[in-house]
Amino acid sequence: MDKEAFVISKFPSAKIGDDGAVVGEWVYSKDIFAEHTHFKREWMSLEQIARKSMLVNLSDAVAMNAVPKYALIGVIIPNNFSRQDLQILSNSFLKECNKWGVEIIGGDTTSGASLVISITIIAHTTKPIFRHGMKVGDFIAHTGKVGQSLKGLRTLLRSGKLAKNARFIAPTLRSEFFYKAASYVHTSMDLSDGISKDLSRLCHINNMGVHFICKLNQMELCSGEEYEMLFSFPPKNLPKLRWISKKTRTPFRVFARAVRGRYRSFCKEHHFKD
Amino acid sequence: MDKEAFVISKFPSAKIGDDGAVVGEWVYSKDIFAEHTHFKREWMSLEQIARKSMLVNLSDAVAMNAVPKYALIGVIIPNNFSRQDLQILSNSFLKECNKWGVEIIGGDTTSGASLVISITIIAHTTKPIFRHGMKVGDFIAHTGKVGQSLKGLRTLLRSGKLAKNARFIAPTLRSEFFYKAASYVHTSMDLSDGISKDLSRLCHINNMGVHFICKLNQMELCSGEEYEMLFSFPPKNLPKLRWISKKTRTPFRVFARAVRGRYRSFCKEHHFKD
Repeated sequence: MDKEAFVISKFPSAKIGDDGAVVGEWVYSKDIFAEHTHFKREWMSLEQIARKSMLVNLSDAVAMNAVPKYALIGVIIPNNFSRQDLQILSNSFLKECNKWGVEIIGGDTTSGASLVISITIIAHTTKPIFRHGMKVGDFIAHTGKVGQSLKGLRTLLRSGKLAKNARFIAPTLRSEFFYKAASYVHTSMDLSDGISKDLSRLCHINNMGVHFICKLNQMELCSGEEYEMLFSFPPKNLPKLRWISKKTRTPFRVFARAVRGRYRSFCKEHHFKD
Repeated sequence: MDKEAFVISKFPSAKIGDDGAVVGEWVYSKDIFAEHTHFKREWMSLEQIARKSMLVNLSDAVAMNAVPKYALIGVIIPNNFSRQDLQILSNSFLKECNKWGVEIIGGDTTSGASLVISITIIAHTTKPIFRHGMKVGDFIAHTGKVGQSLKGLRTLLRSGKLAKNARFIAPTLRSEFFYKAASYVHTSMDLSDGISKDLSRLCHINNMGVHFICKLNQMELCSGEEYEMLFSFPPKNLPKLRWISKKTRTPFRVFARAVRGRYRSFCKEHHFKD
């Protein structure tokens, strides 16, 4: 187990283990987005950084079939930031929240050596979808195409540039598809650490393995920060999901089936080390 | 306005401005506790750091007359941390939460250059106490004695040592007193930035000034991170509050009255700069 997972593993709550924690009809999720771990300043504008930090958090709510309502924003502000920098950050948070109908209800800021954004999203649902609940025989699928984020990261690490709409800069959340699809799926989570790593978690929680239907290349398996949805569902629901996919113009691919056994990820940690 | 306050000031929500944000019967608060800004590693053990990071967050809930129920914990873990270090951190979070009946329901960890702890507390209340609502003539009071935290910080900055129970290491929250007192107060907040600075916020929100009854010295006025309660109440409730004070063995001091006018803090930023 890696050091990061170790801390959380020490907490006994049954609410831990999903993209968000469910209390009544509320879902709480919290993700840290940190300079030198998740991004470098020269890779993205401050507007893009604020936007992505919000999206990676909203993504957890979407994966739980919860509609984000409120946000708390914590920011560690580097000492050399100007008022204009802060204005850009705040505006970008507000703009993205407005798009999603999310109200920023509080937060905390403090100064520090590098930029850290820690967001808590409070979302509402009457039917949360968890990571547990996968059945043997379930189809396992992901939305969209995967691999672009790692490709983008590699370009950046080679000092290349990415387009504004590149996956690594601006992930697309599949909320429109997933809120409709949720009634027909057994389990879900967002693809934050790569199909292989995230799938290994899904399998571990459900005490299952996978049989791959499609051959996925390493880029597809190990690309983190895709923020596509990973979900499992009974094969009988395939037509329904295909219909929702068409209606919402959101492609998905069934790439595996749930089987007895276990599955371990072979990918390396997807975050770069500065 | 300082840079830290500037970011939050850009968000228009009416829920912003108190120690926590109220949604229905839930109160949400979030505070960052960061190495080099709030503490140095050599000043406190990891156990003490985790404990204080939890207490400064629980303090916000108490100040809103809300009972903390759940916590989300975000940690940036320095690369050189051992498993034992992480075990100590986790145990300390758990121990403090158990004391308060708080369930840790989730969080996020990532690696970084220095230790950052970002906690979100979800607390329950049927009668939140806000910062607004002060009336002209209100008595303004604080619990306990103030000044010890700044004194402790100065000792640490001179490479001195503090006792385990020193205010700067282990603040005492006044929950027992305040949950009983809440029915008799108009406004409250916790003393995180010092009486002068926090009082200036209370006055600003209420568009009022203060008339000091007692002469407070600079140490008392400018000592941050006290986590005592600052509150205002109608003079007629003084006997009731004195009785609660006696019952809970929690001293408080009426040091000012609310008057028309305004009040500005003269204290410097209370955080040290590394």
